[in-house]
Amino acid sequence: VPNSPIKIFNDPVYGFIHLPRGIVFDLVEHPYFQRLRRIKQLGMTHYVYPGALHTRFHHALGAVHLVSLALDSLRSKGVKISEEEAEGVSIAVLLHDMGHGPFSHTLEHIIAPGTTHEELSLAFMEHFNEVYKGKLDLAIPIFKGTYPRKFLHQLVSSQLDVDRLDYLRRDSFYTGVVEGNIGSDRIIKMMDVRDDELVIEAKGIYSIEKFLLARRLMYWQVYLHKTVVSAEQMLVKILKRARELAIQGQELFATPAFRFFLSGEGLDGGLKLNSKVLDTFARLDDFDVMASIKVWAHHPDFTLSTLCQKMIDRHLYKCTFSNDPVPAEHLDVLRQRALDHFPRLKPEEVDYFVFEDTVDNTLYSADSIKINILSDQNEVRDISEASDQYDLPTLTRQVTKYFLCYPKELREAGAR
Amino acid sequence: VPNSPIKIFNDPVYGFIHLPRGIVFDLVEHPYFQRLRRIKQLGMTHYVYPGALHTRFHHALGAVHLVSLALDSLRSKGVKISEEEAEGVSIAVLLHDMGHGPFSHTLEHIIAPGTTHEELSLAFMEHFNEVYKGKLDLAIPIFKGTYPRKFLHQLVSSQLDVDRLDYLRRDSFYTGVVEGNIGSDRIIKMMDVRDDELVIEAKGIYSIEKFLLARRLMYWQVYLHKTVVSAEQMLVKILKRARELAIQGQELFATPAFRFFLSGEGLDGGLKLNSKVLDTFARLDDFDVMASIKVWAHHPDFTLSTLCQKMIDRHLYKCTFSNDPVPAEHLDVLRQRALDHFPRLKPEEVDYFVFEDTVDNTLYSADSIKINILSDQNEVRDISEASDQYDLPTLTRQVTKYFLCYPKELREAGAR
Amino acid sequence: VPNSPIKIFNDPVYGFIHLPRGIVFDLVEHPYFQRLRRIKQLGMTHYVYPGALHTRFHHALGAVHLVSLALDSLRSKGVKISEEEAEGVSIAVLLHDMGHGPFSHTLEHIIAPGTTHEELSLAFMEHFNEVYKGKLDLAIPIFKGTYPRKFLHQLVSSQLDVDRLDYLRRDSFYTGVVEGNIGSDRIIKMMDVRDDELVIEAKGIYSIEKFLLARRLMYWQVYLHKTVVSAEQMLVKILKRARELAIQGQELFATPAFRFFLSGEGLDGGLKLNSKVLDTFARLDDFDVMASIKVWAHHPDFTLSTLCQKMIDRHLYKCTFSNDPVPAEHLDVLRQRALDHFPRLKPEEVDYFVFEDTVDNTLYSADSIKINILSDQNEVRDISEASDQYDLPTLTRQVTKYFLCYPKELREAGAR
Amino acid sequence: VPNSPIKIFNDPVYGFIHLPRGIVFDLVEHPYFQRLRRIKQLGMTHYVYPGALHTRFHHALGAVHLVSLALDSLRSKGVKISEEEAEGVSIAVLLHDMGHGPFSHTLEHIIAPGTTHEELSLAFMEHFNEVYKGKLDLAIPIFKGTYPRKFLHQLVSSQLDVDRLDYLRRDSFYTGVVEGNIGSDRIIKMMDVRDDELVIEAKGIYSIEKFLLARRLMYWQVYLHKTVVSAEQMLVKILKRARELAIQGQELFATPAFRFFLSGEGLDGGLKLNSKVLDTFARLDDFDVMASIKVWAHHPDFTLSTLCQKMIDRHLYKCTFSNDPVPAEHLDVLRQRALDHFPRLKPEEVDYFVFEDTVDNTLYSADSIKINILSDQNEVRDISEASDQYDLPTLTRQVTKYFLCYPKELREAGAR
Repeated sequence: VPNSPIKIFNDPVYGFIHLPRGIVFDLVEHPYFQRLRRIKQLGMTHYVYPGALHTRFHHALGAVHLVSLALDSLRSKGVKISEEEAEGVSIAVLLHDMGHGPFSHTLEHIIAPGTTHEELSLAFMEHFNEVYKGKLDLAIPIFKGTYPRKFLHQLVSSQLDVDRLDYLRRDSFYTGVVEGNIGSDRIIKMMDVRDDELVIEAKGIYSIEKFLLARRLMYWQVYLHKTVVSAEQMLVKILKRARELAIQGQELFATPAFRFFLSGEGLDGGLKLNSKVLDTFARLDDFDVMASIKVWAHHPDFTLSTLCQKMIDRHLYKCTFSNDPVPAEHLDVLRQRALDHFPRLKPEEVDYFVFEDTVDNTLYSADSIKINILSDQNEVRDISEASDQYDLPTLTRQVTKYFLCYPKELREAGAR
Repeated sequence: VPNSPIKIFNDPVYGFIHLPRGIVFDLVEHPYFQRLRRIKQLGMTHYVYPGALHTRFHHALGAVHLVSLALDSLRSKGVKISEEEAEGVSIAVLLHDMGHGPFSHTLEHIIAPGTTHEELSLAFMEHFNEVYKGKLDLAIPIFKGTYPRKFLHQLVSSQLDVDRLDYLRRDSFYTGVVEGNIGSDRIIKMMDVRDDELVIEAKGIYSIEKFLLARRLMYWQVYLHKTVVSAEQMLVKILKRARELAIQGQELFATPAFRFFLSGEGLDGGLKLNSKVLDTFARLDDFDVMASIKVWAHHPDFTLSTLCQKMIDRHLYKCTFSNDPVPAEHLDVLRQRALDHFPRLKPEEVDYFVFEDTVDNTLYSADSIKINILSDQNEVRDISEASDQYDLPTLTRQVTKYFLCYPKELREAGAR
Repeated sequence: VPNSPIKIFNDPVYGFIHLPRGIVFDLVEHPYFQRLRRIKQLGMTHYVYPGALHTRFHHALGAVHLVSLALDSLRSKGVKISEEEAEGVSIAVLLHDMGHGPFSHTLEHIIAPGTTHEELSLAFMEHFNEVYKGKLDLAIPIFKGTYPRKFLHQLVSSQLDVDRLDYLRRDSFYTGVVEGNIGSDRIIKMMDVRDDELVIEAKGIYSIEKFLLARRLMYWQVYLHKTVVSAEQMLVKILKRARELAIQGQELFATPAFRFFLSGEGLDGGLKLNSKVLDTFARLDDFDVMASIKVWAHHPDFTLSTLCQKMIDRHLYKCTFSNDPVPAEHLDVLRQRALDHFPRLKPEEVDYFVFEDTVDNTLYSADSIKINILSDQNEVRDISEASDQYDLPTLTRQVTKYFLCYPKELREAGAR
Repeated sequence: VPNSPIKIFNDPVYGFIHLPRGIVFDLVEHPYFQRLRRIKQLGMTHYVYPGALHTRFHHALGAVHLVSLALDSLRSKGVKISEEEAEGVSIAVLLHDMGHGPFSHTLEHIIAPGTTHEELSLAFMEHFNEVYKGKLDLAIPIFKGTYPRKFLHQLVSSQLDVDRLDYLRRDSFYTGVVEGNIGSDRIIKMMDVRDDELVIEAKGIYSIEKFLLARRLMYWQVYLHKTVVSAEQMLVKILKRARELAIQGQELFATPAFRFFLSGEGLDGGLKLNSKVLDTFARLDDFDVMASIKVWAHHPDFTLSTLCQKMIDRHLYKCTFSNDPVPAEHLDVLRQRALDHFPRLKPEEVDYFVFEDTVDNTLYSADSIKINILSDQNEVRDISEASDQYDLPTLTRQVTKYFLCYPKELREAGAR
């Protein structure tokens, strides 16, 4: 319906998403934003959960949907929110992930070293604010957390923001890990505002605890699943090797935008966020990376082609987790086995084949913006105090795991 | 399909439930079991969650469905389970709740004082074993926990039995409290057996923790919701008052079966589980109780009729929860207010109108059959040791809450 | 939240239902309306689909939810609807089924002969209009179809009203017959208004055709399922026999309200809808009927007790459907077999045991309020003209089936 | 679980998919099959339904899951099916779509002219049969329809095959068009075999009619949605133009595999299905095509770069449907307007910017393998005879629509 004031998007997660026409919809239509259609939310996770192909585009729309529900609910409780603030927070939510490149968290530090995706998101917002003549004047301070009414920023970015509410529910839906599902509707209905800070009504505390646990479950079962970690680590190694070869001046198939970032051109001392770099970054997506990896599987460099071929055929490295570091001698044995098994492998490249690292996760961070619980007596307390089940040490305990990756052939060789 | 070896039941929760013809299906068809169609799983909970009208009949079928999935999965892992054992455990699961009367937990001690529903279930099983000429010879020891292979009993009754797996998922479904949903499929797939005890593979630990938390959430959000507690407490008071009047020999509308239990005939020293009592018990269901309450709303006894009218019209008592006991003086004030407000109320009956009590819940009990986790190194440990997030004190902390109930009129009177 | 302007109900079908406080919520709280909590939407259907225990209470709330979505959508397209009209149509939807008694369609003509449930609904509305001092002044003409803006009535009662949209989706959900599910969200979004009549945008035509077919599927698979028909016919026979006995002055267990309707007191020449009759009707629900049937299973009258015992134990009559009438000789054979099999059965009561009747269903009725399709060229046409797949004769073809019911024992006897 | 005889895949649609280890799982692991992870089931449909990103890989696994359910159900009804037949039909189902290239139906005739995807699928099967030493000896005749027991082929390929059952349910799930959902469980339970032909029990006829209508709805609402058609037609034009330029010898960015097919090398007289061509085809997927289109947006050729830029930015052509052909004069006006609007556009390339074509759909084809209904009297009839609602002309009516595509700028220009 061309003249309808509302644009409707289909979403298997929520049914329908309504977007008001105007600046929010104009931003969605911008080619820079459309590019998010080509960036998967969960990178290589679909190698384990084949349904996990959803994009940052869909996630951003979902988060805007949730923030509009939250605004409705808060207003129904008497919280005054102006039309400008509502638009500002919607824009901030919509664009909060603009700075993500392909395989975002995984490749963030390789594609754009020295720059975080939040800085890139902000750079895009400032660019849009110029293009759209100041229409993001409120969205930018809300995103940065400098706007006086803190709850607007907390909706965008905190330990209980609409980003997390959407991604947990969406990732749970598309992976099929139903236990990651959260009651976003109920949590949103429990939101209120006191002293311009976001609070949760006391009776919602069980939903919050469940939300924290759902997030933890999704970390260990999905985001840090050992096969997902293996695929993502291999991707990191591929990009690292490709950049080495590019810097050495070797011939490498790549789209022009990808070549720019591979060559590290203009990247010394970190990415300069000028408009040319931003525009090139906005041309980069999963397709550039994967199309190249497919071609590189036939590259003369042994390390690059072996990694790429394994990635394409889903012959992923074996990855084992443990609570303790990998003993040095165990690593040495595996490295030697790799050199024996792959005659073309050079000793200085053995770390592409055998390596270790750590992952960690925390249920709740005492250092970040806290989750505030509003008691029936109208008092605000941190969730670690309000919970009758959990105390702060339990909630904030950081769990760290060590992992070791190496080609499956080495294990089989070892079994002899 | 009359001659099909399989009988199919529709279930919105699982899609279809397959039941083999033979003794299991014969038991389902028995009038004693069919009676479970008339006993709601969640008593008066539908006053808060209007969809929660599902019955013990459906729950029992669902639990049989889950146990058959569990048996399939265990067998696929090489656990030997004979056809007789499979039938035995299915029967034990099917009948585990046979001993529940109307509004089960709520009225258990009023309708059948001195007898638990487990004892009644066992009495029904023994009755069936006579009727069906020994076909429950294995089911009974499995139910009682005397069969040597413990895991079969643990599937029927433990902290991770198919009873809990089904009721959490089913109650979550029908109440609409999606956060109570659990990944029963995944938990079942993680089950294994070591030394004839049920264990859970280590990678399932997040699902188990989530399951424990989902159960806790369902307790506080559904089973112990303050309005549910109010309705159930009023029901208890109604039955208590009705029995008092019955024993006094006052005229009371009731079906014959209900009259038997109200009059307390043959109940001195507890219910005798002879076949007449069993048969009468098996004629009792939600319909006897509610039909009587509706009539009693017009009974000359002030206390009985007031309670019943409020129940029928859903004018439930106000119910407040707190972490501390209700101060005695507060109770006295309310009692006096009740006597002032209801001129026909006699002082000795004031506890029908103003009363307090406690509810409690524990995430995990160290005293019951434990949840065993099987590590990657094939070692079995209790979940409180295997978890990297929770220790035993956190898991076994008992949470107790005090509640106070009184008619809403008293509050309003107090507001003047 | 006591002072919140919105009351929230949980609904597994839609998640949450929001009800504005004010007259709509006051009506929900009225004991006459609360009674709908005790009337199942689908009567005895749960004997085939054990999950189908949902009530008219929940359905009425669901329909109000859908009408509020429809009003939002229409307003967003520029249709002017005043606050009074919105409230009026919400009330009309809420109360559209007030006139249903227990096992509604089945027992309608037995409990309240000469009166339709629509007339009873209207009587309740007029009663409420007195109680609430004219607050239903708009709801009543909208319900009756005399309000000038026809689309408001069409939302309440037409071939595409919110009643059907809710019951198809709800019945599909609780039976587990997923194929009966309909895209109510999409259909509502396709609604528009032209000349104060409800129309559907052309691109919604596939959804409408699917909706018609889903309804037909639900008829044959659920509402007219042969076992459901059997149970409902047996219920009719039970009530018919009970009334005969009551009129003969025989002793019959019954609640006072049920006794009133059984005795046919004041029912000669049809139900008089005075306030006493209305009040008594409002005390009647599924519990009165089922509690009595359970007791009647032990009544000395052979026909009544046999029917009731079979009903309680779910020993339902065999029911066969065919496209042609049952041959008279076949009926005679079965009747004779019944008399042979049941020595206590009197010949004049044989029709309680062996009987035939018809059921029918039509996809779309050309005589009712039509479904109008709005073309891209802004022209309004009946769906039978707008469809490129179906013509009027196909859409309006009435399908009639004959069924025959008799006790299963007779079939088995015949098999010898 | 490395040694488990079962491999489990997560699937949001069915929960879990179990795959037996052995040849079926070996085929899944083959790089040729893994490539299906990079081919979306619905091409550009995600431009309208952003969730529709699922792949042919997941669909193939889903279809294998359904066929295993169908085999279980048939066996439970006494149909004898050998282990070899079960494996054969599973393989045939798994590989039925192997011959699809990127954006399958859309680009089929451009990438592999003169060859159907069925022929390519067969070529892959024959290749696998060599590699796996005859293990597809039964799968191949089942796929081709030459195996004597016809129902096995009918499960793989007919008007009610597991291909359709899975894709309708899966596409419905991922698009969010819930009305396209079908009761695959129920349809499968209704399957039986008579004279080695697949039949559906009579009581399943409503599910079948609903299935046919769901498929029709999915055609018009999803597969032939006007914006989807626009995107796919633009893709066709892009590839056509790229091939023209390639044949002219112009420089074009492309991966080696894509270059092979673009250049038309060895394609004169149709694709030769030798092992080199097959291997190159198996290296081609969505990534090759989209990465190239992104680069071509900056190509010096006006037609190619304009089309590609519009595609990438989702500035799709306006597409209008009608029941009648587009008048020639209307086309001429639009063509002239295109030439006026785009000064660099050459007259001989105007058909890349303004063009018309047709789409059509039929509910049920009388020429294909029929859907047989098994009556209660054990007679087999075609669905068009068995239905009491639809006759053959209604069911087999072909609906054809004409569409017209052109850049949106031309419409706006015309509005002046």
